[in-house]
Amino acid sequence: MKQIQTNASGAKQLLADWETAETADIEAIERQVSEMIATVRADGDTALHAYTEQFDGLTLPRFRVAQTEIDAAYAAVEPAFITALEHAQRNIVSYHEQQKRTSFMDTPASGIIRGQLIRPLEAVGVYVPGGTAAYPSSVLMNVIPAKIAGVPRIAMVTPPGKTGVNRYILAAAKIAGVDEVYALGGVQAIAALAYGTESVPAVDKIVGPGNMYVATAKKQVYGQVSIDMIAGPSEIVVIADEQANPRYIAADLLSQAEHDVRSRALLVTTSETLATAVTAEIERQLITLPRAAIAKAAIDSYGTAFIASSLTEAFAIVNAIAPEHLEVQVEGAFEYLPLIKHAGSIFLGAYASEPLGDYLAGPNHVLPTSGTARFFSGLNVDDFCKKSAYISYTKEALARDKDDVIYLATKEGLDAHARAIAIRFEEE
Amino acid sequence: MKQIQTNASGAKQLLADWETAETADIEAIERQVSEMIATVRADGDTALHAYTEQFDGLTLPRFRVAQTEIDAAYAAVEPAFITALEHAQRNIVSYHEQQKRTSFMDTPASGIIRGQLIRPLEAVGVYVPGGTAAYPSSVLMNVIPAKIAGVPRIAMVTPPGKTGVNRYILAAAKIAGVDEVYALGGVQAIAALAYGTESVPAVDKIVGPGNMYVATAKKQVYGQVSIDMIAGPSEIVVIADEQANPRYIAADLLSQAEHDVRSRALLVTTSETLATAVTAEIERQLITLPRAAIAKAAIDSYGTAFIASSLTEAFAIVNAIAPEHLEVQVEGAFEYLPLIKHAGSIFLGAYASEPLGDYLAGPNHVLPTSGTARFFSGLNVDDFCKKSAYISYTKEALARDKDDVIYLATKEGLDAHARAIAIRFEEE
Repeated sequence: MKQIQTNASGAKQLLADWETAETADIEAIERQVSEMIATVRADGDTALHAYTEQFDGLTLPRFRVAQTEIDAAYAAVEPAFITALEHAQRNIVSYHEQQKRTSFMDTPASGIIRGQLIRPLEAVGVYVPGGTAAYPSSVLMNVIPAKIAGVPRIAMVTPPGKTGVNRYILAAAKIAGVDEVYALGGVQAIAALAYGTESVPAVDKIVGPGNMYVATAKKQVYGQVSIDMIAGPSEIVVIADEQANPRYIAADLLSQAEHDVRSRALLVTTSETLATAVTAEIERQLITLPRAAIAKAAIDSYGTAFIASSLTEAFAIVNAIAPEHLEVQVEGAFEYLPLIKHAGSIFLGAYASEPLGDYLAGPNHVLPTSGTARFFSGLNVDDFCKKSAYISYTKEALARDKDDVIYLATKEGLDAHARAIAIRFEEE
Repeated sequence: MKQIQTNASGAKQLLADWETAETADIEAIERQVSEMIATVRADGDTALHAYTEQFDGLTLPRFRVAQTEIDAAYAAVEPAFITALEHAQRNIVSYHEQQKRTSFMDTPASGIIRGQLIRPLEAVGVYVPGGTAAYPSSVLMNVIPAKIAGVPRIAMVTPPGKTGVNRYILAAAKIAGVDEVYALGGVQAIAALAYGTESVPAVDKIVGPGNMYVATAKKQVYGQVSIDMIAGPSEIVVIADEQANPRYIAADLLSQAEHDVRSRALLVTTSETLATAVTAEIERQLITLPRAAIAKAAIDSYGTAFIASSLTEAFAIVNAIAPEHLEVQVEGAFEYLPLIKHAGSIFLGAYASEPLGDYLAGPNHVLPTSGTARFFSGLNVDDFCKKSAYISYTKEALARDKDDVIYLATKEGLDAHARAIAIRFEEE
C-alpha cells in the first residue's frame, strides 16, 4: 500500500485524478448504452432475447422466473442459510422501520386545511448483480425498505447464469417478499424496467447497484423513471490512530478490495508506524485469500495510506473523500462523530467491522460511492415513497388572503393567475 | 378546447403522444448542452463570459451580484411587495417546518448502538428562471426548504437582463436569505454550479425549474451533483362534476396556460354541459388576457376536456395523467382524496384556486411534471438533507452475531469479508 503524507486538498485531488482516468472511455459506453435502450424500447422482448443471447450466451424460453422455481430454490438451500438470512432480515427490518414517516395536516387559520400525504410508489424494480459472485444479501437490502414503505409491486431483475438464476438469490427473493423475478441482466434489464416490454411491465423507480453499464443505463433512463443513485466501485476508508489493531484494519481493507479491481481501500492515520504495520499485514493476509488476485490488483492500483499531521487533519481528509464506508478505529470513536460531515455508513470502534454492516447490523449496504455521500444517502424507506401536498380554503379564508396573491401575481406579470383569484369575488 | 370521450388508457396514450412529439429533437439539444458543459468545465469563467455574450447579449465585468446591489434592490421595491412576500414566506415556512426530521438512534441489544444522522447539504445552487417573466415567488419556494434544512451556503443563479438582475428577484433573495447571487443563466449556470469556476464555487445539489436546455443540463450533471427533478412544461388538471363553476375552472386553466405555449390545461369531467361551458368561458376570458397569445397557443395545442363515464373513471384518468397540479372541484372534494394516487399538489374545492398555491398557501410550487408525480415529489426539506447510518458493537455483541455474518459472507464467496469478522476472535 502506498503511503502519502498529505492534507485534505491533496487527498481530494488524488481521488479526482482516479475518477478522471476512469471516465476517459465513458463516451463509448454512453453511446452503446443509449443504442441498447432505444432498441429495447422499440423492439421489446425481441431485443431482450437478442441481448441475452449476445451477453449471457443464453436462449431463454421466457424471462419471468416461475413461482415453482422460486419455491424449489427455497426448498433446496441449506436451512442454516435461511436461518442466517432471516436473522439479517429481522435486523434490517427493525432498523428501517425507524425511517417510516407519517403524513401531516395542519389548520393554520380558520377555513384553511393544508397537508402532505406520504405514499408508497406503485411499482419498483430492483437490480441484483450476478457477475463474479451472487449476493443474496443485496436482495434483502434493496427489497426490505420498499416493503416497509408499502410498495405493492416489487420486480427483481438479475442476470441468468448457465444453470438459471442462482438459488440463493431466489431464496432471498422469497424471504424478502419480491413479487416478480426476471432472469435478465445488464442494460437490457434497466431498459425493460424503465419502458416496459411484452413480458416485463414498466416500474416507477429502479434501485440497486450494478457495473458501469448498468449505472450508465440508470442515468439515461432517469426522468422516465426515478433511480436511487449512480453507483461506482466500492470504497472503504479506515481512520485510525496509533492504538488501532493493524490486523483488523488490514482485514477490513481487504474485505472491500476483494469486491473489484476498481475498489478503493484507503487508510487515513496520524501514525506512520500503524500504516507500515497495516501494509505488512495486507501482504501477509493476501497470501491465503481466495480472491487474492482481485484484492491485490485493487490494493496495487488504489490502496493508499494517507498520513495526516493531526487527527483534525485526518478527519478533514475523510470529509474530502466523503467515503461510502467509514471505519473509525480511533480511541473513543463516538466522540468524533460530530467531525464526520460526509459518509454513507459509519462504523465506530474496533469491533464494528464493515462486513457486519454488509450483512447483519441492519443499516442498508446500498450506499453512495465516489464522493457522492456529500449529497446522496444510503438506500432507505424514503426512496420508495412520494409526497403530495394538498390545500383546502373556504371562500372566507381566500377573501382574507386574496389581495396578496393578486398583488404578487400581477408583479410577476401573470395576470391570468391574478384573475383566477379575483374572479371568485366578482359578480357574474 | 377539444372534447374527448375517453378512459384512463386513452388519456395516457394521448399524453404519451404529446411527449413523443416534443422529445423528437432532444438529441440535438443533448449534444449542444453536453458540449457547453464540457467547455465550462475546461475553460471556467472564460466560457461563462463567452456564453453570456452569446445568449444574453451582455458583457458583464463579473457574475457575482454585490451585496450593495441586492440591498439597493430591496430598498427600491414597493413596501407592499415586501409585505406580500413576507406573508408568503410565513406560510411557506410554517408548512415546510412540518417536513423537518430528526436523527434516530436505537440500542437493539446489549453492546449494540445503531442510528441514522440527518444533516443538511453543505452547498446548494438554486436556478431561478428569467425569461418571459421574473418570478420572485420561485426564489422563496426554492430557498426556504433549504434554509429550514440548515444548508449553510445557498447560491442563486438567474439570467441577467439588459439592466441587470430583476430587482424583485434580488429583493426576494434578500428576504429568503440567499448567501450568493450570480447573474448567470442557462446551461452555463448549471455547468458552473456543478463543476465550479474561478468565480462560482461548486455546489452539492442544484434545484429549481428551467427551460428544456436547463433541464437537459441538470440531467447531464446528475451524479456529479444531485438535482431535485427534471421538470417539463407546467400542467393543471381540473376534475369537476356538473355543480362546478365554469368561470372559476376556465380562469384556473388559463392561469397555467399563460405560462408557456407548451403548458397543458386539462379538464376531466363527467359533464359534457360543464365542458362546453368551460370552453365558452375560456374563449370569453381570453379576449381580455394580457398574455392571451401564449395562453391561446397552449389551449389550442393541448387544451382538452376528457369526458368520463363516471367519477370513478374520471379519477382513473387523473391517475393516468399523474398531474403536477390537480384541482378537485367536485362536491365534497375531501372525500375523494383516497382516490388520488399520483399528483404533485392537490387543490380541494372551489376556492382552493391553483395560483393560491403558487404564491401563498405554503406548500411548494416546484412540482413534478409530465407524469413524474408517479415517483418524484414537490421540492421539500428532505431534498436538502442527507442521511448517514452508524453502528457500534462491542466485542461481546459481535461474538453473538459473528457466525451468521461469516456464514453469509462465505456463501457469497466473499472470504475476505468473513475473515474480517473471524480475525477479531483469533489469537495473533
